Amino acid sequence: MLLSCTVLCANAQELTNFAFGRKPIVSPEVKNDSVTFRLKADYATIVSMYGSWMPSYFDKIDLKRGENNIWSVTIPAPTPEIYTYNFIVDGVAVSDPNNVLMQRDGTRYLSMLLIDGERSENYKEANKRGTVSHVWYDSEILGINRRMTVYTPYGYETNKKATYPVLYLLHGGGGDEEAWTSMGRAAQILDNLIEKGLAKPMIVVMPNGNPEQQAACTLNLPVKEIDRKDPANANLYVTSLVKEIIPFVEKNYRAIPKKSARAIAGLSMGGGHTIAATNLFPGTFDYICPMSCGMRDADGIDASLQAVKKAGYKLYWIGCGTADFAWPGTQTMVELLNRNGLEHTLFSSDGGHVWYNWRYYLNTFAQLLFK
Amino acid sequence: MLLSCTVLCANAQELTNFAFGRKPIVSPEVKNDSVTFRLKADYATIVSMYGSWMPSYFDKIDLKRGENNIWSVTIPAPTPEIYTYNFIVDGVAVSDPNNVLMQRDGTRYLSMLLIDGERSENYKEANKRGTVSHVWYDSEILGINRRMTVYTPYGYETNKKATYPVLYLLHGGGGDEEAWTSMGRAAQILDNLIEKGLAKPMIVVMPNGNPEQQAACTLNLPVKEIDRKDPANANLYVTSLVKEIIPFVEKNYRAIPKKSARAIAGLSMGGGHTIAATNLFPGTFDYICPMSCGMRDADGIDASLQAVKKAGYKLYWIGCGTADFAWPGTQTMVELLNRNGLEHTLFSSDGGHVWYNWRYYLNTFAQLLFK
Repeated sequence: MLLSCTVLCANAQELTNFAFGRKPIVSPEVKNDSVTFRLKADYATIVSMYGSWMPSYFDKIDLKRGENNIWSVTIPAPTPEIYTYNFIVDGVAVSDPNNVLMQRDGTRYLSMLLIDGERSENYKEANKRGTVSHVWYDSEILGINRRMTVYTPYGYETNKKATYPVLYLLHGGGGDEEAWTSMGRAAQILDNLIEKGLAKPMIVVMPNGNPEQQAACTLNLPVKEIDRKDPANANLYVTSLVKEIIPFVEKNYRAIPKKSARAIAGLSMGGGHTIAATNLFPGTFDYICPMSCGMRDADGIDASLQAVKKAGYKLYWIGCGTADFAWPGTQTMVELLNRNGLEHTLFSSDGGHVWYNWRYYLNTFAQLLFK
Repeated sequence: MLLSCTVLCANAQELTNFAFGRKPIVSPEVKNDSVTFRLKADYATIVSMYGSWMPSYFDKIDLKRGENNIWSVTIPAPTPEIYTYNFIVDGVAVSDPNNVLMQRDGTRYLSMLLIDGERSENYKEANKRGTVSHVWYDSEILGINRRMTVYTPYGYETNKKATYPVLYLLHGGGGDEEAWTSMGRAAQILDNLIEKGLAKPMIVVMPNGNPEQQAACTLNLPVKEIDRKDPANANLYVTSLVKEIIPFVEKNYRAIPKKSARAIAGLSMGGGHTIAATNLFPGTFDYICPMSCGMRDADGIDASLQAVKKAGYKLYWIGCGTADFAWPGTQTMVELLNRNGLEHTLFSSDGGHVWYNWRYYLNTFAQLLFK
């Protein structure tokens, strides 16, 4: 018996490659301390590229046309990290067709570049890996059925009696429930930290922080319009998070239903959600980690922070880059926490409002949780 | 209190869009019976496109430059289905930057187009949706830890005592463990069929059928070379499927561990795997659904099929397009099944070796399983 299909399919794939003008071109190629990018572009006039290691979106590197119309450029390898990049062919942004590794950042699909090193070590696959699930739940508060991403650590399925603490990990503006597992490498970071004994085994819940949206990238689930100017709607999402998502998780997973087993963290808009959830529902979380966001010295802030202080918490960990536009707002946050006598840790790093900082922060504060 | 971040992030997104030369351009736009595709390409000389509704990969449609260098073309809407397409800008394949809906077909990311209608109805999101998980398991037979995709139907988490039959759903050459949930819309098809009462609630297990590969699209999990010319290695994957994946699923999920609750189906290479698993391990599956693949009149085939016949099964369902290159092999399969007295159903459709057929087949045979 068996199987002419294998051979035939290989041919179909080759046919496809041929039709798309592709041959086995290596891109990106990391060699010694340099990286070469290549793109076959027969009829292009100008090919350039942008990479997330460049200081500004307005920076570009030009590629040069070589043999067989393969354009290329070799640059010194940036410091160890995961970066994203895209080509620009006669003015149009193009992902690298020879690189199957992509990340979706909101509406954009970007090609990935790994530079190996200590900083990126935990962003790669560990030996023992947890499960990543895309789960739907009903939100009565938002009036829609919604998707979230849930990470359960290695061993969750087999250690059927083990219970786990939960980190609620929130994305920023333009993101969705897939941001932390795509751009954020959250599963890999947790896998590595847990495998190395640096973090407690935990469940990580990554909801969708856009209250109008049922799920990212669906064919047909309409958004439900919310009047964001109506103050009554200001905290719908964080209310849903605390009143609906947490009970759902604690009912359907082997999650420890206690303040001491709940952490909340988020970046940018999700940092704002972290602060709002904490201030509106003091006593829910023992671990509070806003990143790359500010706090305003607004009416009622002292009363809110006093309530957080009274309810108690174990960790208030703030991450921000010194070049982040949220850095001044972070300073205000620190002042407000100091004014109200809330102990906290400020963790600052180089750089701005970018994923390489948020991965770094997760890799850092996750080691401090539930201990 | 609250949250300058939201506003600031919106600005960052706008900055990004601006830097990438993007403005709110609608593409694709389905209106009445036509579809318009648009692409802003300031410096391009030729912009064309390919869509999966076209008869051949060599077909192209030209776009015309319009105001503000927005290139566009309007075509009659193809018949209801999900299609993929890409632009070709001065010779380089480009996905549609204004369309966040993408499917990964092996190494290629393609933009999606939905044309609404009866045929595509079940490819959209249902009201009640199951969970899609990415789960790792150890294969001693293949010597690697591997990822598979598992669909559990709506209600699996809450009906904690319910048990379920399992469909093992296999991809083709060039695919991986994400093929059926991306290109195949398997979760949506099952959600819809189950919600409408047309299919039994079932678990769907979608393993990775490339025995060298640990998982699709990882940064750092090396393939484990297998000498495919060594006959001893010919059936490593299907052996692992039956001896390792099935026990893993029946241990870790509420799966009914019986032949009558096991179905196997696959397309192309996965059709070959379906036949191989069935012939090598008769009595494992009651439902056998090879698609778009052939069977060879090779040594031992009669003995294998007699063993399948003797072990018994409830459904042998074969799907193939009449324009598929596997159609002649399908004819041979039918002859061999007839020669050995194995009852079967041949379901043929228009068209060739393409996803719109495989979605259609899944939508068809899933209604026949476990009944």
